[in-house]
Amino acid sequence: MTDDGTGGRIEGDLPVESATDAAARIEAGDVLGISGFGSVGYPKLVPEALAARGDAAALDLTVISGGSVGPEVDEALVESDAMARRYPFIGHEALREAINDGVIAFHDRHVAGVADEVRFGGLPAPDWAIVEAVAVGEDWLVPSPSVGSTPTLVDAADRLVVEVNAAQPRDLEGLHDLLVRAAPPGREPLALDAVDDRIGSTRIDFDPGKLAAVVHTDRADTTYTFRDPTAVDRALADQFAGFLDAELDRNPAFADSLNLQFGVGSVGNAVVSALDAVDLGAGDVAYFGEVVQDAVLDALDDGTLAAASATSLALSDEGQDRLFANLDRYAEQVVLRPVDVSNDAGLIDSFGVIAVNGAVEVDLTGQVNSTHIGTDVVGGVGGSGDFFRAALLSVVALPSTAAGGDISRVVPRVAHVDHTEHDVDVVVTDQGVADLRGLSPRERMRAMLDVAHPDFREALTEYHEQALERGGHTPGGFDLAAEWPPDDAT
Amino acid sequence: MTDDGTGGRIEGDLPVESATDAAARIEAGDVLGISGFGSVGYPKLVPEALAARGDAAALDLTVISGGSVGPEVDEALVESDAMARRYPFIGHEALREAINDGVIAFHDRHVAGVADEVRFGGLPAPDWAIVEAVAVGEDWLVPSPSVGSTPTLVDAADRLVVEVNAAQPRDLEGLHDLLVRAAPPGREPLALDAVDDRIGSTRIDFDPGKLAAVVHTDRADTTYTFRDPTAVDRALADQFAGFLDAELDRNPAFADSLNLQFGVGSVGNAVVSALDAVDLGAGDVAYFGEVVQDAVLDALDDGTLAAASATSLALSDEGQDRLFANLDRYAEQVVLRPVDVSNDAGLIDSFGVIAVNGAVEVDLTGQVNSTHIGTDVVGGVGGSGDFFRAALLSVVALPSTAAGGDISRVVPRVAHVDHTEHDVDVVVTDQGVADLRGLSPRERMRAMLDVAHPDFREALTEYHEQALERGGHTPGGFDLAAEWPPDDAT
Repeated sequence: MTDDGTGGRIEGDLPVESATDAAARIEAGDVLGISGFGSVGYPKLVPEALAARGDAAALDLTVISGGSVGPEVDEALVESDAMARRYPFIGHEALREAINDGVIAFHDRHVAGVADEVRFGGLPAPDWAIVEAVAVGEDWLVPSPSVGSTPTLVDAADRLVVEVNAAQPRDLEGLHDLLVRAAPPGREPLALDAVDDRIGSTRIDFDPGKLAAVVHTDRADTTYTFRDPTAVDRALADQFAGFLDAELDRNPAFADSLNLQFGVGSVGNAVVSALDAVDLGAGDVAYFGEVVQDAVLDALDDGTLAAASATSLALSDEGQDRLFANLDRYAEQVVLRPVDVSNDAGLIDSFGVIAVNGAVEVDLTGQVNSTHIGTDVVGGVGGSGDFFRAALLSVVALPSTAAGGDISRVVPRVAHVDHTEHDVDVVVTDQGVADLRGLSPRERMRAMLDVAHPDFREALTEYHEQALERGGHTPGGFDLAAEWPPDDAT
Repeated sequence: MTDDGTGGRIEGDLPVESATDAAARIEAGDVLGISGFGSVGYPKLVPEALAARGDAAALDLTVISGGSVGPEVDEALVESDAMARRYPFIGHEALREAINDGVIAFHDRHVAGVADEVRFGGLPAPDWAIVEAVAVGEDWLVPSPSVGSTPTLVDAADRLVVEVNAAQPRDLEGLHDLLVRAAPPGREPLALDAVDDRIGSTRIDFDPGKLAAVVHTDRADTTYTFRDPTAVDRALADQFAGFLDAELDRNPAFADSLNLQFGVGSVGNAVVSALDAVDLGAGDVAYFGEVVQDAVLDALDDGTLAAASATSLALSDEGQDRLFANLDRYAEQVVLRPVDVSNDAGLIDSFGVIAVNGAVEVDLTGQVNSTHIGTDVVGGVGGSGDFFRAALLSVVALPSTAAGGDISRVVPRVAHVDHTEHDVDVVVTDQGVADLRGLSPRERMRAMLDVAHPDFREALTEYHEQALERGGHTPGGFDLAAEWPPDDAT
């Protein structure tokens, strides 16, 4: 092992150079496949150096990541006009604005599909993979705190730049279970014996001829900050706990064990609170999802969760410190996989996952908007569709209002449909539970009125009555939807 | 073997009785799980006898089938007011009217999900399975020309009535590959080595205590009628052939073999015509889909297709005669599976399927409506969503207009979203090909204008320009959508 001053993170005689020199290798029009998911594990110095190039505005770059990345990419490359296209998710306000202004072309994709799309014509093939790692050798690297689509992006790219980050522990290797899926047709379905089963490698192998540059960094990821639960968060958690308790009683699928996926933030906290409140029986409870957040660590620590499978560590400062300081212990329970494995439809089906995800808004028939406020995109569909579709039970959990109560999240018709009524089983808000399973659209509309905030229930009821007068299987109309929100809603 | 006059179709001392006596066993409020998919293989005499009961209008039945069934169910039980709820698909005009009038509660579901939903709380558990078979014994039956969700419905039901149909060949058994999936969590992903691989049984086994009645029938299924291709159909086929030819050239996934799914009717005929027109190379081409229609038989006969996997035989009279007369030969190439296997996301992914499905209408950003005309439902989402989501390449193929050219099928905003822009890769009409992969919503809108019929292009362009003035990632608005169709469109 060659220790070059970064703690044995670089093995062999590798082309170490400055970020500026590495960035100088990129040509105008290039497609960059970058590491990163859940705003961690993305390259930082090379994108910043690209943004600092004198010709940045002429670079016309396409950037494909696993998921969300930080400002060194999605602010620096936007403000320097270096980026023309971006897939599959928006992680920063500067990028969001440029996309909504029509300056950068963006199409959000189900994140589980990106690896295949890069290889089989859905998205442009990457010229470069730019990858953050905690260690690198002549023909291998160990990703940092997220996996995302990195294994496939490295495999598909012509050339490779590795940012070796000394601010993250070398032993993150112990969490990884990495592979590049075989190509269809005829590839084997993925199979895991348990949520924490391992079927891959702890490293990404690559053709040594690809490695163009290795760059040192010790820049930390921007960690998540979580606000304290509000009264609405607590009411949402209580409603979800009531639902989960009843469901565990009545559903034979959850008699012996329970596998859960849930999103970051108040939804995740609500689910974890609910786990404390309900009788889980003797069986194991595991997280089979996309991101390990603080609430997942807490639940692992207190024994509520037996294991966690994800593609990213979306942690607070405190959570990151706790995980980094106890990697050996967490490596026994936490597995980080490529997102085309963590979010694979066959595996989600196999584990009979209960998926609990937030949304921007839900309409009366159960159509879900996860991406848009009006005509503006917020982030992207991410992995929500991967789980909504393949889960045994799909739950939308969201506060009944937004903007401090001024806007109802239960609406006559969503501004953009990201998940259809065919994929949504249950809607939970701070106001109640709408179990939509088996209900016709007319029945769904009735059930959804009960989970709306009282301030908007009268206006929604009025819409409902007007829609019913129109008749049809799914009563409504664009003209009625255009009248929402009513002037006197609150 | 006991030959009781129906050609050795009933083995053992079974409770043979009249349809009227069998129907008398059903009680008000019962949930019936019935066989049937693609309008074949459904029970005929017992539903008719139920409809003829004096108390039919008080029966308040819930009926769950695999997919589409014929008038003996969806007309007789509707006109007698015996049916209160229906899942997951509409196969007959009488049922459609009752649903759109709000008389019968209906929710269309992805057909691959119905088996799990029946077992795990998404749909009501069946009191009865009423199943058409070509043979039955004390603890087994052989389904007739469709499988659908029959294995699971038989497994989940408390009691069983079997209609043994002498109008269908006993040797249909040779096509079947039947199983009930294990329960999650922890079930193995489904795996097939080839499209015509077999992993199940040719019979459905059941607890002999469930068998309440066996009813004789020789009522044939209502076969499909196919119209001759129109000029629009031929133009659609030409456009699709041009696209497929280019895609096979550029996409490495299809270099060695090709697995296709396509729907019934003009879309299916277009795909099969295209297969004749393009260079398929030396590799095998197979059908991994939902229904075997005449075009699939033709392609098997002339060697274009090597194998076909489906859940139903949706054939014309001629096609049915041809298949029934050559069952030994077709059994080597054709496999009929439960719809939760034929449409399984993991298998569709494994085979790298190109899915080609029709739609009612598509909007400028690629959102697809497969189910509604305005507020009225037409049929249901069926298996289109199973394939759109899991396919390696998802193609919507539809004529650019409906109603003899009076209505554009390319619209500003679809009346109902069944498949989102995240799941749709390419739109083909008789006017052209819109390859939407990698395009932002604004770019998609521009590309979709080119596949609209020239009669509507000006009006759509005007909408497009107005939408762009609004700005945002996905320009538009309900008020603009409400102005469609324009008065002077044609």
